[in-house]
Formats: sequence, structure tokens, C-alpha cells
Amino acid sequence: MKPSTSVFFTSITLTQTPSPPSSPTSSFKGGNNYFFSTSTTTHWDKSHFTPADPLTIKDINQQTVQANYAVRGKIPIIADELRDLITKNPVSHGLPFNKIINANIGNPQQLDQKPLTWYRQVLSILQYPSIINQVNFPQDVKDRAIKLLNNIGSIGAYSHSQGAPLIRESISNFITKRDNGHLSDPHNIFLTSGASAAVSYLLQILSSDQNSGFLIPIPQYPLYTATIALNNSIPVGYYLDEANNWTTNPKEIRNLLTSSENSHIKFKALVIINPGNPTGSILSKQDIVELIDIAAEYGIVLIADEVYQENVFEGQFISVKQVLSELLITNHDQYKNVQLASLHSTSKGVSGECGQRGGYMELVGFQNEVKDILFKLASINLCSVVTGQALMELMINPPREGDESYPLYQAETTAIHKDLKERSNVLYKAFVQMEDITCNKPMGAMYLFPRLNFSEVDYHLLHSRAKQSKLSIDDIYCIELLENTGICCIPGNGFGQVPDTYHLRTTFLPPGHEWINSWTQFHEKFIKKYKSVPQ
Amino acid sequence: MKPSTSVFFTSITLTQTPSPPSSPTSSFKGGNNYFFSTSTTTHWDKSHFTPADPLTIKDINQQTVQANYAVRGKIPIIADELRDLITKNPVSHGLPFNKIINANIGNPQQLDQKPLTWYRQVLSILQYPSIINQVNFPQDVKDRAIKLLNNIGSIGAYSHSQGAPLIRESISNFITKRDNGHLSDPHNIFLTSGASAAVSYLLQILSSDQNSGFLIPIPQYPLYTATIALNNSIPVGYYLDEANNWTTNPKEIRNLLTSSENSHIKFKALVIINPGNPTGSILSKQDIVELIDIAAEYGIVLIADEVYQENVFEGQFISVKQVLSELLITNHDQYKNVQLASLHSTSKGVSGECGQRGGYMELVGFQNEVKDILFKLASINLCSVVTGQALMELMINPPREGDESYPLYQAETTAIHKDLKERSNVLYKAFVQMEDITCNKPMGAMYLFPRLNFSEVDYHLLHSRAKQSKLSIDDIYCIELLENTGICCIPGNGFGQVPDTYHLRTTFLPPGHEWINSWTQFHEKFIKKYKSVPQ
Repeated sequence: MKPSTSVFFTSITLTQTPSPPSSPTSSFKGGNNYFFSTSTTTHWDKSHFTPADPLTIKDINQQTVQANYAVRGKIPIIADELRDLITKNPVSHGLPFNKIINANIGNPQQLDQKPLTWYRQVLSILQYPSIINQVNFPQDVKDRAIKLLNNIGSIGAYSHSQGAPLIRESISNFITKRDNGHLSDPHNIFLTSGASAAVSYLLQILSSDQNSGFLIPIPQYPLYTATIALNNSIPVGYYLDEANNWTTNPKEIRNLLTSSENSHIKFKALVIINPGNPTGSILSKQDIVELIDIAAEYGIVLIADEVYQENVFEGQFISVKQVLSELLITNHDQYKNVQLASLHSTSKGVSGECGQRGGYMELVGFQNEVKDILFKLASINLCSVVTGQALMELMINPPREGDESYPLYQAETTAIHKDLKERSNVLYKAFVQMEDITCNKPMGAMYLFPRLNFSEVDYHLLHSRAKQSKLSIDDIYCIELLENTGICCIPGNGFGQVPDTYHLRTTFLPPGHEWINSWTQFHEKFIKKYKSVPQ
Repeated sequence: MKPSTSVFFTSITLTQTPSPPSSPTSSFKGGNNYFFSTSTTTHWDKSHFTPADPLTIKDINQQTVQANYAVRGKIPIIADELRDLITKNPVSHGLPFNKIINANIGNPQQLDQKPLTWYRQVLSILQYPSIINQVNFPQDVKDRAIKLLNNIGSIGAYSHSQGAPLIRESISNFITKRDNGHLSDPHNIFLTSGASAAVSYLLQILSSDQNSGFLIPIPQYPLYTATIALNNSIPVGYYLDEANNWTTNPKEIRNLLTSSENSHIKFKALVIINPGNPTGSILSKQDIVELIDIAAEYGIVLIADEVYQENVFEGQFISVKQVLSELLITNHDQYKNVQLASLHSTSKGVSGECGQRGGYMELVGFQNEVKDILFKLASINLCSVVTGQALMELMINPPREGDESYPLYQAETTAIHKDLKERSNVLYKAFVQMEDITCNKPMGAMYLFPRLNFSEVDYHLLHSRAKQSKLSIDDIYCIELLENTGICCIPGNGFGQVPDTYHLRTTFLPPGHEWINSWTQFHEKFIKKYKSVPQ
């Protein structure tokens, strides 16, 4: 890493310290290393000081004030209050339901998904290796735990800032296998605390000033707009095509870039979420090629958020890395400068280990000096949680046929895949039968993003209520849904939608049919309450 | 949380989208919700595009380029390269040592400290609850695990953004007990990924613009200067008094504040590290009172980094919270506006569970609207790792007398305390015997910060070498130490020091005497090499 030339301390000069800082051996490099004098003594009497006011929201960083994160925003906060009310008054809470159904966030194990036995057996040994002789775990579980312990040492020690070398190597092998043999380099892998930390690092280094622009899909996962806001940069949305199963239109992105050539925006990255959150769509290979072409031509970083790559019901997931690797073989000079960051996580897929905070990013085509800066950011955070790193290893390097754990692993993962597909289907079918709701069938991920077709003509009472309350139509729907059924989902405006359209995002993870039935009943009442009598 | 008025997307207008966004039900609030037109089609032929150059270090966020973090900076990077060399050529590496001794970072379990049995037994059950009937763990271990599982649910689910409510309550009880019965409110506790994440949140919200100033001790833990640099704010150092066992001089801080009244700096926070890192000093109650007075009078936030509160060999640790609580009783009006953030961690103390990333911060006196913003930042990161949260509970609510686990817990923690004190003492004694080194005896924490008294008169060869190489005296010492012994420690300039003084920071954690002997031998040779013949 290059030595920095940052000014270590303020250079506001009042009085120089006795030792002049001009010596080349001064320990503060690159700045005027002056300190305020300490030679005078201020007289003060503490009984006489006037206490200052505390900081208000106006005194703090306005980017942090302005950032929005709907997934845990106002609707989930109301849901938390209702949950507290129920907990404190289990009998006399006065609500028409007895529990909150958190469909606002993809948090499988908060609902009823069981963790995979393979993961948890190995992790329990990593926490307390002495149990290895007390427990009747399969031999491959014990072998893997011993291998990890021998290599990493105690999971209570900080690892290498980028993550344990053995695990980075394992991830590279996984990527190579997934991508039809196209190689991956362990030096390009960074273990992160979930994929969120990777997004945070990437957007932070790419936000060079307030003109930095990020192309993001609309609808998007609001981590992107929140992080862009925190970095005081500019989100530029490209619409996904709802009429066409939420596909991405590379031409629209090109138009955005072309049209803004004379604007102040300096585009830094193009974000792709594939499979889509909240849309559930899956990118075709041809679209990926065109997105890579854009990155190559404009010199902007491709951020491929591929955390749902295991959650595919229809069609096929192809990684951006694989497509880029193929293009590099056929036309190396055109693509050699493409900078790609691909993200993955242990929170989704069939793992659903959200609370364990495992994740990684793979960087391709970045200059070493830029990777060094990412390494420094990772170092300032010391390391991602080491059990989360180990979990990533277990996820991408699972038991193989012939291993003692394999049959159970296979049975559990197959059941989860089947279950997720079924749940998605049941909820999808319920939506398409609801009056004035349309919904694309999801191909992957964990969400549905149905559209509420509540036009001003048909729903003038609803629209006038929205005007009065300064809420959006989708806000009102989600609040009433929550207050009547306990179901917590998120208005589409938290994700972005074409103006004057209204959607909501819900996971399909909650078990059973009861909650879907209560949603259907709520919807009928909502329509009855707000829809004008047909002309 | 208040609805934000942020501009969701860029307001650079080119063409409005077909549906005008002027409707009050528009989902994008508070901004001009225009999108670039997608109605025109750009003609392009991909075979003809000219590939753009990749981003260089000049194109990215310069704050991330300028931030320094010496603890994992250039010397540890050289150490990593030497370790790789040894691993690849165990016999023929050609170095005068066979292993790297990482004294650069307080990472106890990387060296030889064993994790506490109590922690790891409970955590192994949390990972895989089914083992509870297979293992011969003490009953209180099983009871605690069951209590946590019943309350938190699976550790694989996201928790509440602030941390699991049960654990926050437990932390409040710990603080109340530690602080002589002065109450703590669970709503003021935020679980964080180590204390580093808390520092990051606090400095981020307090950095309102580039004039935001942070008072930090010199020497400091470089996380502070790194995070201040990332937020483009101003570090203002107050010197600790080396001649007086590194005590804090509140008058110096007052002088800095008074002298800068007409400067552009807006002071936001005063950072206290107690017990001191890297100094090992402990603040007296009187000094804490005076620091609180400063915070009260100037309306600046007190950030009390108290992660080493368990690591005390001499004197007594008193928390800033306790002193503030006492002042609030005797003189409520003077102190009611004081804003205090106290940090703690599972990485230090006798736990040393760095890789598990447990930590918390307690906020006192903050306005609710400001706490809401911290809550939002925590929400954007979803939650801190849940096993780290559980570990915090186990640390601050350990077995009690009469519990089956208690004797072993007591034996293990007593042994670690004794061991750390001894190691600190052995290394301290070695330093004071070295020629031209002086060292204060540490009262707490995990480090020594000896001074290298290498004056230009006595060490002109060293000084001229420093001038030629543009390195500092302490850089040269640490590099030669590493290259000759494999011991990796950090030059004082990474922490800050009075100009023309030279120090280094080393942990005293590595086991045994051998490494200390090799350091002593190296030092003698270094003196011989560089010191001029006495006149």
C-alpha cells in the first residue's frame, strides 16, 4: 500500500509547538504539523459555565438524515410497536390479530426455515472444538471442522483483513466451477459481513465527489439509494420493464448515459441485481453482454448483486463473471478494462443465515492501487466475522456424493428449494386473483412486487385521502394491511416505481395459507371501502 | 423515524417521463422526480466501441485514499509478505527467523490465549441446539443457551437493528451494577460489530461538514484518525503527558477550544480512550469530571472508548457514565445536556474474542431525533452478527458463585488476568533496561508505547539515513526489528507523537521470553550500528 500524504492533524496555526516540525524525520508527514499552544493557562470556574444545548438533527451530517431505508423504515417501525403492544397485553391488546407477520424482509429463519444441519454441526465444533469426541456427527463434518481449525486457528482471532486465505481459495474454486471453468483468483476475493458491507465499501470508494452517479435499477433494493445518499452521490434510475416481466433494457441505460454527456454527472458504476430484488426477474445472457459492453465503453464499474443466485425457480442464472470471462477470450482487447465486482451472501439461497453475516465480493479488472484502497477499508474494520467466513466456506463447498453428510444435506436443500418455489407460487396465485392487482410471476429471489391498479377515476376516495394525509396510495394500503392483519410489507415507493404507479414488496417466506387468506379478505374489504361503484 | 425529504433520484431534467410527476401521490417525495427520456433509441454498434480506461486512484474518493491505518499498514504488510515467504520456503527462506510475531495488534487468540470455556460451550449450543443432549456441559451452560434460544430464536435470523432486546436489557443491568447502581436504559444500547462499528456510526453522523472537528488524544488509536479522514473532518490532537505517565490534561483541551473560537473548526466530539490505547494509562475521577465539564460547556459529544475496562493492573477504572450519573444527581441542570457515547467490546478484556465481532455502545443525553438517525444507520446494516451479540451477553452476565460453571470460569479468567499482568511486566522491564529507551509502566490495556531516545547528536547516521529514505526514525527501527527478528510492531508516528520524538507500539501478548530476548539482542546491535562513539 502506498504511504499516504494525508494531513494527520489540523493545520490551523495558532502557535507552533516548541519543537519546530520542519525536520524531515517528523512523524506527521505531508502537512503543516502545528498544534495549538498549551503554554497559556485558561482561567475557568466550573460552577459558572453555562451548559450548551445538545445536538439536534440540524447539527449532524445531513446525508445521514436524508438517507432512506424502507425495508426497516416507517411501516416496520409501526409493526414493532404493535408487536410490543401484543407482548405487553397478550389478551387485551385490542388488535384484530395476535401476531405480526414480517413479510418486509427476507429473513427466512425468523419465519420457519430451519438451518442446514451441515452448517451448524461444523460451526458448533468451531465454537467449541472439544465436543468433537462427544457428538455423533458424520465424519465429513468433523473432518471439515478440523481442516478449518488447523488452517484458520481460533475463530476468536482476527483473520486477514480480506478474509482467511483458505476460504478465499475455496471461494475461487467455487466460482471457477460455477462459471464453466473460467478461473477466479483468491487475491480478488474479499470476505464481507453480508453483501451489504461490500456495497458500502464499493460505493464509498467510487463516490469521488457529489457529481458521482450510480445507475441503479428501478425498482431497486433500497440499500443502494441509502448508501448513495450517505455518500452524497447521485442515484440515476433505469426502469425495469414491468410489462415484460421486469426485464432490463440495456438501450435505456445507453440513452441515460448518452443524454447526460453534457450534464455534471460523472458515472461511476452500473448496479445489476440478478436475480432481481424486488422483481424476481432473471437476466438473459444477451442482456448481460450488452451491460458489459456499456461498462467497457464508458469505463464504469459493474456491480453485480448476485446474492439470490441460488434462488431460481424458472430460467437459468448466469453470472456476469462467466459472461465477461467468455468475452475476454473472444475479444480480449475490447473487454480487458472492464471492472466487475460480484457480490454473494450466506443470508439468502437455501442457507438463509442472515444473522451470521457472511458474504464475499470478487473483483475483476480493478487496478491494484484501487484494490489496495479497498484492502485498507477492510483493514480499518479489522475483519468480517470469522464464523461468517467459515459459513461461506460451508455454503460454497458443501458435502459431495459419497460423504456421510451428503444424503441429509441433499434432502434438506431439496426440500427448501421445493418449499420456496411452492410458497412463491401460492402467493403469486393469490395476487393474480385479487381485484385490481396485477403481478409478474417471479423467476427467482424471495419476493413478489405486485402492482396496485388503483386509478384516480376508480378510487377517488383513496386518492383524496392520500392527498390529505400526504401519504402515497401504496403507503395507505400497507398501513391498513398491517393494522388489519398484522402483515408487514413495504410500499413500492421505498424501492422506486414509475410515477403514478403503486406497488408493494412482500416476501413469500411466511409459512402456511392462513396469512394469505387474511390478506385476500383484507383486500376485498379495502376494495369495497375505496372503490367507486362501477359506472 | 421522520419521513425523509431526500431527493430520491437525480433531478437533472432532460425530458419528463410520460406521466407527469406533479401528482401529490407520486412515490418520489420532496424532489423533482424526472427521469431521462427513454423514447429515443441510440444507434450503436458494439464492435466499434473504444474501450475506456479503468479507474485509477485519482478517480476515486480521495478521503479513502488519504486515510491511514497503521495497525494494519505498511509494516504489517511487509510482515505478511515475509510470512508468505516462510510458508512457501520453510527451509530455504533465508531469513534469520522462522516465524512472524504479530505484536502489531491486540489479537490474543492469534497468539496463545485460549477462549473461555463458558463462552464457547454456550455458543456451540446456539449454533447446533441438538447437541444439548449429547454433551456433558454444566447445567448453567445449557440453561443459558436455552434462555437465549427461546428469546432470540435462531442465531441465523436478523435481529432487531439495535440488537436483541434481551441482550440489551442484560447489558443495561451490567452497566447499572458496574456503575454503583446508576441506572442504564436498554433503549440506549446499540449492539455493534466490535467497537469499531460504533466509532464509525458516531463519527459519520457527527461529521456535518468539512469543518467538523474531533478532539482526540495523542497518541491515539488510529481508527480515529482513519475514520475522521474517511468523513473528511478535522482531527485536533490533544497531547497526553508522557512525563506524567501519559495523563490527560483537561486544561490543554480547554486551551485548544478557547484558542480556536475564531477558527473555522466546529468541534463535535471529544474522544477519550480509557484505559489508554496505546499508552496504558487510566483516567482519574477528577480528570473525568473536568472532561465532562468541557463537554457540558461546549455542547460537544463525549466518546468514551472503554474497551479495555477489564484490562487493569494498577489503579481503578471508573466509567465516564458513572461519573456523569453522579454529577447529574448533584447538579442536574448543569449536566442534563451532556451527550455521552460509551463503547465496549468482546475483543479485549479476558475474552479476546476479536474474530467474533461483538460490541455495544450506550448513548446518554442524545436527542431522540439524533438516536433515530443512528438507528437508521444500524438498520441499513441490518444487524450486528447475532453470535457476537450473544457473546456480549455471556461476557457481561457470566456464571455466578454457586453455578456449576463458576469455578472453571473463575480459574480461567483469573489465570488470564495474572498472565497479562506478568507479560506486561516482563516486557516493561526489558524495555527499561534497553539503552536509550524509556517506557512508562502501563496501568491497563494490552500495549506498551516505549520511547526511542535517538537524538540527532547521538544518532547522526540514523538521522541521515532517515532523511535519505524519507522514512521516520521509528519506521526504520520497526522495519529493521521486523527484518531481523520477525517481530512486527508499529512505529509511533501511526499513533501520533510530539514532533521529533519517536516511539513504537507493541502488544505484550506474545507468549514466552524468547521473543523478548531476541528483541533485546536486536536492540543492542541497532545501537551499535547507529550510535556515535560517545564524546
